[in-house]
This record gives sequence, structure tokens and C-alpha cells, in this order.
Amino acid sequence: MATWQGAMDHRGFHQGSFNSFQSSSSDEDLMDIPGTAMDFSMRDDVPPLDGEIEESRSYNGGGIGSSNRMMDFLEEPIPGVGTYDDFNTIDWVREKSRDRDRHREVANRIKMYILVHYCDSFSLIFSYNRNLSFPSLKSGSLAGLIDISAHWMTDLKEGICTLGIWFNHEHCCWNSNHVTFENRDKCPEWNSWSQLIISTNEGAFAYIVNYFMYVLWALLFAFLAVSLVKVFAPYACGSGIPEIKTILSGFIIRGYLGKWTLMIKTITLVLAVSSGLSLGKEGPLVHVACCCGNILCHCFNKYRKNEAKRREVLSAAAAAGVSVAFGAPIGGVLFSLEEVSYYFPLKTLWRSFFAALVAGFTLRSINPFGNSRLVLFYVEFHTPWHLFELVPFILLGIFGGLWGALFIRTNIAWCRKRKTTQLGKYPVVEVLVVTAITAILAFPNEYTRVSTSELISELFNDCGLLDSSKLCDYENRFNTSKAGELPDRPAGVGVYSAMWQLALTLILKIVITIFTFGMKIPSGLFIPSMAVGAIAGRLLGVGMEQLAYYHHDWAIFNSWCSQGADCITPGLYAMVGAAACLGGVTRMTVSLVVIMFELTGGLEYIVPLMAAAMTSKWVADALGREGIYDAHIRLNGYPFLEAKEEFAHKTLAMDVMKPRRNDPLLTVLTQDSMTVEDVETIISETTYSGFPVVVSRESQRLVGFVLRRDLIISIENARKKQDGVVSTSVIYFTEHSPPVPPYTPPTLKLRNILDLSPFTVTDLTPMEIVVDIFRKLGLRQCLVTHNGRLLGIITKKDVLKHIAQMANQDPDSILFN
Amino acid sequence: MATWQGAMDHRGFHQGSFNSFQSSSSDEDLMDIPGTAMDFSMRDDVPPLDGEIEESRSYNGGGIGSSNRMMDFLEEPIPGVGTYDDFNTIDWVREKSRDRDRHREVANRIKMYILVHYCDSFSLIFSYNRNLSFPSLKSGSLAGLIDISAHWMTDLKEGICTLGIWFNHEHCCWNSNHVTFENRDKCPEWNSWSQLIISTNEGAFAYIVNYFMYVLWALLFAFLAVSLVKVFAPYACGSGIPEIKTILSGFIIRGYLGKWTLMIKTITLVLAVSSGLSLGKEGPLVHVACCCGNILCHCFNKYRKNEAKRREVLSAAAAAGVSVAFGAPIGGVLFSLEEVSYYFPLKTLWRSFFAALVAGFTLRSINPFGNSRLVLFYVEFHTPWHLFELVPFILLGIFGGLWGALFIRTNIAWCRKRKTTQLGKYPVVEVLVVTAITAILAFPNEYTRVSTSELISELFNDCGLLDSSKLCDYENRFNTSKAGELPDRPAGVGVYSAMWQLALTLILKIVITIFTFGMKIPSGLFIPSMAVGAIAGRLLGVGMEQLAYYHHDWAIFNSWCSQGADCITPGLYAMVGAAACLGGVTRMTVSLVVIMFELTGGLEYIVPLMAAAMTSKWVADALGREGIYDAHIRLNGYPFLEAKEEFAHKTLAMDVMKPRRNDPLLTVLTQDSMTVEDVETIISETTYSGFPVVVSRESQRLVGFVLRRDLIISIENARKKQDGVVSTSVIYFTEHSPPVPPYTPPTLKLRNILDLSPFTVTDLTPMEIVVDIFRKLGLRQCLVTHNGRLLGIITKKDVLKHIAQMANQDPDSILFN
Repeated sequence: MATWQGAMDHRGFHQGSFNSFQSSSSDEDLMDIPGTAMDFSMRDDVPPLDGEIEESRSYNGGGIGSSNRMMDFLEEPIPGVGTYDDFNTIDWVREKSRDRDRHREVANRIKMYILVHYCDSFSLIFSYNRNLSFPSLKSGSLAGLIDISAHWMTDLKEGICTLGIWFNHEHCCWNSNHVTFENRDKCPEWNSWSQLIISTNEGAFAYIVNYFMYVLWALLFAFLAVSLVKVFAPYACGSGIPEIKTILSGFIIRGYLGKWTLMIKTITLVLAVSSGLSLGKEGPLVHVACCCGNILCHCFNKYRKNEAKRREVLSAAAAAGVSVAFGAPIGGVLFSLEEVSYYFPLKTLWRSFFAALVAGFTLRSINPFGNSRLVLFYVEFHTPWHLFELVPFILLGIFGGLWGALFIRTNIAWCRKRKTTQLGKYPVVEVLVVTAITAILAFPNEYTRVSTSELISELFNDCGLLDSSKLCDYENRFNTSKAGELPDRPAGVGVYSAMWQLALTLILKIVITIFTFGMKIPSGLFIPSMAVGAIAGRLLGVGMEQLAYYHHDWAIFNSWCSQGADCITPGLYAMVGAAACLGGVTRMTVSLVVIMFELTGGLEYIVPLMAAAMTSKWVADALGREGIYDAHIRLNGYPFLEAKEEFAHKTLAMDVMKPRRNDPLLTVLTQDSMTVEDVETIISETTYSGFPVVVSRESQRLVGFVLRRDLIISIENARKKQDGVVSTSVIYFTEHSPPVPPYTPPTLKLRNILDLSPFTVTDLTPMEIVVDIFRKLGLRQCLVTHNGRLLGIITKKDVLKHIAQMANQDPDSILFN
Repeated sequence: MATWQGAMDHRGFHQGSFNSFQSSSSDEDLMDIPGTAMDFSMRDDVPPLDGEIEESRSYNGGGIGSSNRMMDFLEEPIPGVGTYDDFNTIDWVREKSRDRDRHREVANRIKMYILVHYCDSFSLIFSYNRNLSFPSLKSGSLAGLIDISAHWMTDLKEGICTLGIWFNHEHCCWNSNHVTFENRDKCPEWNSWSQLIISTNEGAFAYIVNYFMYVLWALLFAFLAVSLVKVFAPYACGSGIPEIKTILSGFIIRGYLGKWTLMIKTITLVLAVSSGLSLGKEGPLVHVACCCGNILCHCFNKYRKNEAKRREVLSAAAAAGVSVAFGAPIGGVLFSLEEVSYYFPLKTLWRSFFAALVAGFTLRSINPFGNSRLVLFYVEFHTPWHLFELVPFILLGIFGGLWGALFIRTNIAWCRKRKTTQLGKYPVVEVLVVTAITAILAFPNEYTRVSTSELISELFNDCGLLDSSKLCDYENRFNTSKAGELPDRPAGVGVYSAMWQLALTLILKIVITIFTFGMKIPSGLFIPSMAVGAIAGRLLGVGMEQLAYYHHDWAIFNSWCSQGADCITPGLYAMVGAAACLGGVTRMTVSLVVIMFELTGGLEYIVPLMAAAMTSKWVADALGREGIYDAHIRLNGYPFLEAKEEFAHKTLAMDVMKPRRNDPLLTVLTQDSMTVEDVETIISETTYSGFPVVVSRESQRLVGFVLRRDLIISIENARKKQDGVVSTSVIYFTEHSPPVPPYTPPTLKLRNILDLSPFTVTDLTPMEIVVDIFRKLGLRQCLVTHNGRLLGIITKKDVLKHIAQMANQDPDSILFN
């Protein structure tokens, strides 16, 4: 049904297309062919029914076209009209319009126009309280639960508590009476597996037993996790942030935020973290929070029925997720704003903040970290930093950027291999192999054996007098000149061996994380990235410290680092390194700095963090534009239109629009000359999701745009309910249809499903402007005109393909529309 | 030149309009009439010149239409084309397009396509460093300077230091050797005016002398301030935030951010604050920071020439302004994001943060508060708050909301009176009268005599053991049970008298601030609002404290407030009250809470602050939708399209567009049939700022849009430079003009100034969508079509007028386009 008419040639198409119509209508499966033989004498019944259909244009989901007239709320909408298919992009303009219609509907119904504003305010208060604090409360509680169970299960790999199986190592020894402060980690009540099985903890055999049990438990947890994900909720794998970004930008993935995903993700997250794999729970917590938000949206008409409103709640939920993940409410809000949200950053600012706070306080009241702090890695440094230290901080930034770029490239390459080769068919085997390798390599090294977040905690920590860690084994640590300060710090044996172990840990984490992220289990990236950076930072920090100790007469140290003074804090280097690596991978900026700042609680270290984050972002951007989330979005072919990057090519709308120069012409409907059969032929022969409606094929003057889904539903509905509508009935998209002459089938009026305000641009509009319009208004398609004539159409998929082409990427990687 | 043709009637207009053209062309002042008599024999010279003109369509400012072809950079643009008049709205789409053109131009010129990305990154680094840290450094330094001089001049009203006239009271006594800790404020070196003049500080006469000198200095400062503003920089008055909001939303006010404004505002701000008027320096500091940003934009081509790019810098500068005003970098960023910025909140997030931090650290290195803190009112509370206390906090929120609404109404009413009556003609007298009243009423009361920020500091302060303030005069303050804690706190005589004085201060501040804000001197609202709230909060806090002391057996206090314990912190109440009042006036939410949170430095008090801010916003919104800045924007008639509020009426584009149903038709140009004279007649007869170009008057098919300013400049330019272009020359907007027949004047090709991608909507588009498009894309005008025919035009002014009309406001209050 090609009907595109060039600017010059517009004669004689009508008849031709009509003919091809009728010849092709026989192989239709959508059309109710027997209907063409329906008795025309039933025509007399048509007017009232026709009127009923006419009335029903005032249904709720009628798109933009229907919002310009008063609604009759006694009529039920045709079910299904105005909804979306799975893996489809929503039309923001239409959804927003519908929400405003809903407001007005309520206003009309209770006829209390004056009170509308106040009612609305109060309903907002209630929906705030219910919709934004419930998911926050829920995700706060879930986060606490996840923390506690993951902690317990991680320790289960090493042993068991005789006081009660439900105690983890720390709580077990807390409740023990046989523990001294010096040996706070060793208590008789905590039995390692070798003690339980062969009743000893000494010797090579006991070591092997413990080793074996460690690997066994890890494999068991990983197997459970991947099986649960595979069987019950395939969407529960990964971090979920790429998908949430896409969903928030207006895409439908049914079930991605459903109750099964929530349940399975929560359970498998605990299992995955406990299995000792190189992954974190922070990203998946954002997904879990969004699931909570989405499920509670279902309780309220306002949010259930409107895709745009629901996304506002999801934005706030994402903020709550980060808030509970790090205990950083402001950082969570900024993360949601900078990284996740798309269309309404400012509108949801306040709600996100509220949600993040409620979630944070819920988490705090559960107190999973046992220190009554909101914060995961609470640190307090005592030494200020010196301006010269910016040089190592920037070095850490460069390292972070390099690592980020390397990680993204290799991880994406590996994930692509998984997608394209046989590898992807055996997710369980893959997970088990990676877990086995991780566990086998991790057990001998005490820094890989502990959970990653404990490792980060230790690396961030500034050595105090009472620290028994190997990292704090400085030679004269007990000869304090003043109370509470460590004066000279030549590294002891412990520090040197810790350095070696940390270096090995660094290599293991760097390699294994590449293969871990993207497997079919819930896996976050924040913690592994931070671990890599923290190790690198600590190594550099200790190096700097020793350099300053042995060479305090060098000019650079001379001025500020007098002999005997503790002038360099290796923990701060670890923190800066963590920020740099996280920045390199995710390309977050302000939110990253604010999250790290909320972790330390002091404004003093913002400048080092900023310097590192900035360097890291620049270095990583120079090696590859995309962050890990955007790279995964592209890998999966989601239709995500990046809001931050500018489109900087000089192409025009006419270079992008369909049909291309030599293609068959654009498929259009005419407003008053097509029959039901014609339309059904077009529907069956094309796969377009909508059709422009024109005055006539000759003039190509645009009237409106009608969606395929709405058209199919309306025709089906008319055939079922409206007696007399047959295949030869003429479809009218005009406001008034001419009187039906006798002995002809009744007409079908479909103006109610017509979008009377389709977006148009001229063919000479630069694509940069078209991209901007798609981005800012959230369009699904845009029509192209030349001197007032309809010429073609640009869909979101076309725009994305064009952007990919311009960036020398594979345009076919965009899979959905 | 009315040419709107209805959808049905499109015959015979061409000739008629042509006639009326020629008859009206004689009374032209823009047209160069002698040119019509120019010798046609010069026609032979035309082709090369014509070619030159053709070439020059590739000038830099050619709007959207020019960006679709390669540019020839040897050609100079016609000067003036692509710039804006004063008090005009900018076209965001066009400005952004131009910036991208500039990028591509650089890229083309150096022919190093591969390096473009890197160069761009580096140029960004440099422009970051120069453009964003220079204004921040500068505004940081200026803020420090303002702080120090305002402090000195405020003290000058009371006396003078004999150690050196440049010492303020505090520094004078710091440098004195005759001062004890108990009497830190009294030292022999600090002489009050009575001591200097009549050599005594005792007795009624000395009091009168001091009183007189106080009022005299206040009047002198105020007179200087208002005179300087009136003579040198009228734009330096007010807080500047409404204007900056409007400028950032895309409006031109020349000189508003110029160097004179900067200089005079800095000086007069010090004078105004010192005069003791009820005003603050925080709002004006934002204006000062924006001036710094704007002036430094002039050093860089990229920012000087592009109005959109410049606004990005200004957004960051606004963040820096708040950052230095409160020492709250994150709060500053969020303020810029929530309250001030308009089109690019996320793009400028990182830069704003950078600018805010640099500004904050500059201020800190100057250390104007003398406590090496970034923060204006640093407080530390020792007691946690109890859940029950949310009730008084919400009461404070209600008070704040009521005050905010009352203040906005009365202040706007008074400002309108100033605008419309004789009052506005005597700004100097008005300022002097208000200053005199303020000074006379303020001197007897010690809480009004001190500067407002000192008052707030004192109110926020938690009473310690060593506080000598009357507010801390509790009866048994020296009987401490434990060291450093105040156990029982029955109020002493000092507290009761302080309560009375504070109540009087509250009334004075409430009344006088209404008359002060809006006078012709720099005046901020943050500090007076916070003062009102802090006083109310402290009063309530002390009340609660005494209630808890005398009735600690009541059920509500029983559980958490045991006898003898210090369970209520009046300082916290003051802080919550300040947040509530500031929220009521400005309607800030997240940024307000974050600013207040950065003032205290603890996450613990976010919930009380949020409860108060939320209540205050809801109460104030229920009494009047607009915050003070929006109210002032409307009062001044600026074309500001509120981004947060939704347009919720069911009108259509056809209800808003010009021409209205019975008006003369829309003035259009045709693409190939009008002469220079025709166009000049249209230009002189209408005041429209642009004209649509159509294929022909009959078809009304839209080709593009041409700006009046560009048209005038191009025609003038062609008449001057292009020999042979006369009044009867035909203007072609088409791509190719037909060959000129012999003995006819040469044609004028103006396709280069034609915007080939004007925005169009259909006449049935709901206004809610049109408003959304204007908001998000920053349009200046939008054309309206019906079934592909041009029908009318909607300008930003039309949209604003319509919104005002729908909100039952005066549509004529919008003055500018």
C-alpha cells in the first residue's frame, strides 16, 4: 500500500492503490471475510448504534484527539485501546495528556470545581504517603533483610555457630563469654567446618576440608541462585539498571518490575552475594526498589493506568534504592537525577528525596551494619590532605578511567560472545565454572576470602592504635609519642605481605569481574569496581606513605610532612581510588562525589574525590563514549535515546525518514474514501505500528495519525457490536460523515481514535533538532512534510539507527521500536 | 497585508494584496525609495554579486536553515543577522544549532576530523577552568569582601576603634589587651559615638547621641546606596533572582549582568546591609555571581556569541552565588537546579557543582566568618529530637506557610502601588523614610540593633555553659550536675525579657520587610525570612522547653523527657522555623532542606526540616500558587513560562493562535512573487517579529519562517552592496531562482535567512501540548496548520497571555515577547 507521493508527482495514485487493495485482500487473516456478505437490510438499526460509537470517542484512553471535548463518563472505553504491547515505546505526550484528562474527569464527576485544587493537593499527600513511602519502607526493610542474610550465609561458608545456627561469625563471638578484645574474631563457639567434621582446626588436612567446604557452599549458593533465576524469573539477572533506565525513558518490558522478579531477585541476590562471586548488591537493590514501587503502583488507578505517572514513582524508587544501598539519601536523589531519570528530573526531585529519606531511615532502624549509622563504609580521617597529594589522586583517576574503559570493552565483548555463541545456552554451567574458579582462587588469600564489602571497609579504614589488621602492622605502632597518634610509620612485615596479597587480589578482581558481570544471576557493579579502586588506592597510599617516611627530606615532602608526623592517610587514597574506578565504569559525576562524601561525612575530601572522578571520566570518555549501563543498553538493542550526548552531524530529516528515495511510497489512509476491507488489507500487509491519515492521496495534506493497535481493536469491536458494519463499509475519519444513501452499508466513524495533533517537521529540518524533539517530548514517531505535503515518517527506531550509523556502530543493533 | 486564508476560501487574494501594497509603499521610512529609480543597465554586474550573496547564506548566524549545508568560512556574515534586540526572547533551538555549527566550523577549518573529539574535550577542560572557576573565584572573593566590609560598616554605626579605624568591634576587642573573657564585647579601645563626642557612655544624653548617630549613619548609607543605584546602575536594585530566572529561561535584558551592575551592586549591597534595613545579601550575591559569569563570558567567543551557551555558564554562576552566600556547595547546585535553571538542568549539573565548590573554597580561604568554616551559621546540637516534636515543627511549618503567603500578597500589592502611583517617582525619599523608620524602631531593641545575620546566629545557637546572652539566662545555669550539660532549665529573668524583645522584633521584621523588599536598593529576602522564622521558632522552642520543665509529668513528655534532663533544644526550633519561613516565601523544597542540612552538618535533623518545609509549601501553595520570585516576574511582565506547573485546561491551539476568528488574515510572504517594495511595505505596516513564507497565497502551504530583524538587515545590506537591487526586485526564498529576463531588475535571493524548519502544530492540538512544546524546546513562535494549510501563529507571548487568562489573571500583564 505504498502511497508516498513526491513533492512534484501527485496524480493518479488513488485508483491504482485501490485496485491493488482489492486484489490483495484475499490472503488476510485479520479480516472477517464472511462479514462482507452481511445483510445490508440491517442498515436501519445503524443510526443509534452509530451514535453509540460516536459517544464512545469520549473514552478515557482516546489519546490526544479526544481530550478536546467534554467526556461522557457513562460510556465505557473500548477495552485495550490506548494500551501498549510488550517491548514497545510509550508515547509520552499521549500519556501525559491522559493523566490530565483523568484529573479533569474527576473534576467533572463530582462537580466541585472550586475544590479541585484542594482535593488534588490532599490526594497528592495521600499518594505521597502511600506510594512513595510504602515502596521506600519496603525497599528499606528488604535491604536490611538482604544485608543480614548475606552476612550470615557468607560466614556459613567458613563455619557454624554452636550457640545457634542463625548467628553469623560476628554475632556468635559477640554472644560468647570466651572472647578477649585482642582476639575478637576467635571464640570457641564459632566452629569452622574442619572442627565440625574432623574436630581439629590445625594441619593441612583441616585446611583442605575448610577449602573444600568453602568451594562447595559457594557452588551450592551459585547453583541455587542461577536455577531460581532460570526457572522462576529470567528478568532477575544482572544489575537491572540498564533496563530501568530504558523503562524510565519510556519502554515497556512486561514483568520486569513484577512481583516474581522482586521475590526471586531478593532471594538470589542473597545467594549470589554469599557465593563469594565478584559482585555487589547495590545495583540490584535499585531494581528491587523499583519493583516495590511498581507493585505498589498497581494499587492506585492513577498510577496503574498511566505509564507516564508510573515512571515518576519509579524514578523516586530508584533514588530510594541507592539511598538504602549506600545510606546516602542525597546521593541517591542525585543518582536518580543524573543517571536514571529521563523526562521529569525536577518534578520528581522532591518525591525522590522523600522516598530516599524514608528508605534510609527504615534501613537505619533495622540497623544491619550494627553501628547505628546509615552508612555502609563509615570512615573518619584525622589528617587533612595536602595540595601536592592531588598528583597521586589524579594518577588514581587515570587508573580508574583506564580500568573503566578496559572493563567496559572486555565485558561487552564477552557478553556479545555469550549472546552469539553456544556459551549463552548453558547459563548454569557458566555460573558454576566462574564460581568454582573464583572460590578456588579466593580461599587461599584472606583478602579475597572475606566479602568484598568487608574488604573495602578495611581498605578505607585509617589505621588506629587498636587495629589488629595486617594492613596496620607498622613497625613501631606501639611507641606512640602522643596518645592516640601513630608517629613514625615504617611498614612492618605484615604490611609488606598484605601488599602482595592485595596485589594478587587486585589482579583476580580485575579479571574475574569481567566474566562475572552479565551472567544470569543478580550482579551489581558498584562494589567490585570500588574494590578494584580501593585496592589500587591503598597500594599507592602505602607506597606514598613509605616514600614520605624514608624521604621526608625531599622537597615535595619537606614543607608539610615533617619527620615523625603522620602526614599521609592510605585510607583516603583507597577511597579516592574507589571513586575513580566507580566513575570510570559508570561515568557518574556529581552523584558519585556526593555518595562518597556522604560515606565520609566531611566536606574536606570533596576536592580529592572530584579531582579523581573528573580525571577518571575524561580518561574513560576518551577511550569510549559509553558508560557500562549505556553499553549494555546498546548490546541489548533497547531503544534508549541518550539525553546527555549531543547529536552533532549535519544530516537532515529527509535523510532519515522512511520511505527512502527509491522505496515504495508511504502507506497512508485517506480520511473519507477507504472501506473497512481496504484498511484491513493495509494492516495485514504492513507491520507499521501506525498510519498517517490524509485528506486525499492527491493532496497528501495531513489530517492525523492513527495507531495500528487502536485501529485493529476498533474495527474488531465495530464488527462485533455495531450491526451492519461490513467489509465494504466506508471508514470516516472526518468530523461529520455524509448521510448514508440507502442500500449501502453503514459507515464506521473512527475520528475518536485519530490523533489529531501528530508532530510534524519539515524535510529540511536538521536531524540535531529532530533528535532534540524526540528526546525532550518523548515522541514515538514524527511525520515529515515538505511545503505542507506529507512526505514520510521518522520513528524512534529510525532515529536511533541513524545515530548508531553516524557513530560508526551497527544500526541493526537497535532491536525494538 | 492580511493574508490568512480560511481552509475553504483561497481565491483572488494575490492581486488585491499586490495593489494595496503599491499604494501604501510611499509612506515608508525604512525603504530606500530612490533605489527604485536605479539604472537597470547595471544588471550585467548582478550574477557575480548574486553569487556572493548566495555564498553568504553560509554565515554563522543563519539559523536552522543554514546548518544543512557546508559552510564557506571565507565569507563574513552580515553583521547583526542572528542577534537579538533588548527585551526579546531568544530562540533556543536556533542558538543551540548555532553552537553546534561553531563546533563543526572549527572542525572543518583545521581539517582534523579525527582529533575533533579530543580537541573538544580539551577545549572544554580549558573553558571549564577559565569560565567556570574564574567567576567562582571572583564571586567567592567578592563575597568575602562584602562580608568583611558590611561587618565593619555595621559596627561603624555604633562607634569606632581607636586602634585603627579599619577594625570592626570584634577585631578591635580581639586586638585589645584590656579584655576579659566575660566581657568580650567591651574593651576600652572601642569607643561608641557618645564617648567620642561627649566623652561619656552613661546617661540619657549619651544614649540620645548614640541613637542619633545610629540613625544618621543608617540614613547616610541608605542615601549613598539608593543614589548610586539610581545614577549608575538602575538594574542593581532588588534581589535580581526574578530577572536571572527570566534571563536563564531565554530573555534578553541588556546590561542586567554588565560590569556597571556588578560594581554598583557590590558597593551598594554593602551600604544597604550596613544601613540596618531588613534585607539580606544572599539573593544579590547570586546576581553578583551571575554578573561575574557573564562578564567572563565576553572573553570567549564560544560564550559571547551564543546566548544558549552563555546561559549554561550563568546557571553554574548562580550555583556559585548560593554556595558563597551560605557556604553550601551542594545546596547551591540544587538551588540552581530547582529554582533558577531552566533548559539544561542536567547538562550543567557537573559544572555547577565545580563552580560552587571553587567558590566555596575561595570564600573559605578568605575566611570572613573567622571560624574557618564554610558555613554562615554553624551550629551543633547535642540532643536528639523526639518524634512527638514533629507536632511543633509542623506548627512552625504552618506559620511559615502563612507568613510566606501573607508576605507575597502584601509585598506584591505594595510593589504594584509603587509601580502605578506617584510613589515610584521618589525612590530616594522612599528609601530614606523606610531607613529612618527602621533605624528609629531598631535602636532601642538590642535584637533589632544587631545585624540580622548575627541575630539568626544567636537564635540558632544552643545555650552552652559560657554563653553570656540573655537568651541563655536560665536560673540554675551554673549548677551543673555533669560537666558541660545544663540540667534543669527554668527560664530566668533574662529569658523572659528576651522573649518580649524577640516578640517585638518579630512584629517589626514582619511589617518592615514587606515595605523593604522591592525598593530601589539591592535587597535579598533569604535573611529577613529566616530571621522571622528563627524568632518564631525560638519563641516556640523556649515555650516548649518551659512546658516540658514545669509539666514533665504530662504523658507526652513523660516517656522521653525525664526531670532534670535537657530534652528540648530551642535552637533547633529556630532553625526549623527559619526553614519553614524561607520555604513559604520561596517555595524551595529539596534545595532548602539541603542548604539547612549543610548549615548544621548532620543528617539527624533532615526529617524535622523536611516536615516543616513540606507543611510550609503546602500551606503557602493553598493560599497562592506563586513563590515570591514568580510573583515578581509576573509583576514585571517578563515572559517566563513556568516549567513546573502543568497547564490543565482543555483549550486548543486554534483558540489561542493569531489571527483570531474575525481578525484580518495572517500576514505571510510568498516564496517567489513578492518584490522588495512589497516586503518593505509589510515590514513597515506591521510590528510582527517574523513572517511565515508560503508557496503561494492560494495554497497556503508553508515553506519557512523569516525574522523581521534578519529581513530588514538583509534588504538594507543588499541595497547597499548589491548593485541593481531596487524596490521592484523580486525576492526569492526558493532554492533556485528563475533566470532574470533582460531589462528587469536583478532578483534578491534570501533563502539564507529563511528558517526552513519552523515548528508547526495542528489547529486541534490541545494547548497543554503546545505549552509543553514551548517549555521544553524553548520556542519563540509556532505556526498553526489545518490539514496541511497554514492557518495562524502562536507566539510565546500569546501562550503566556492565554495561561494568565485561564488562571483568571490579567493577560495584559505580560509585557514582552
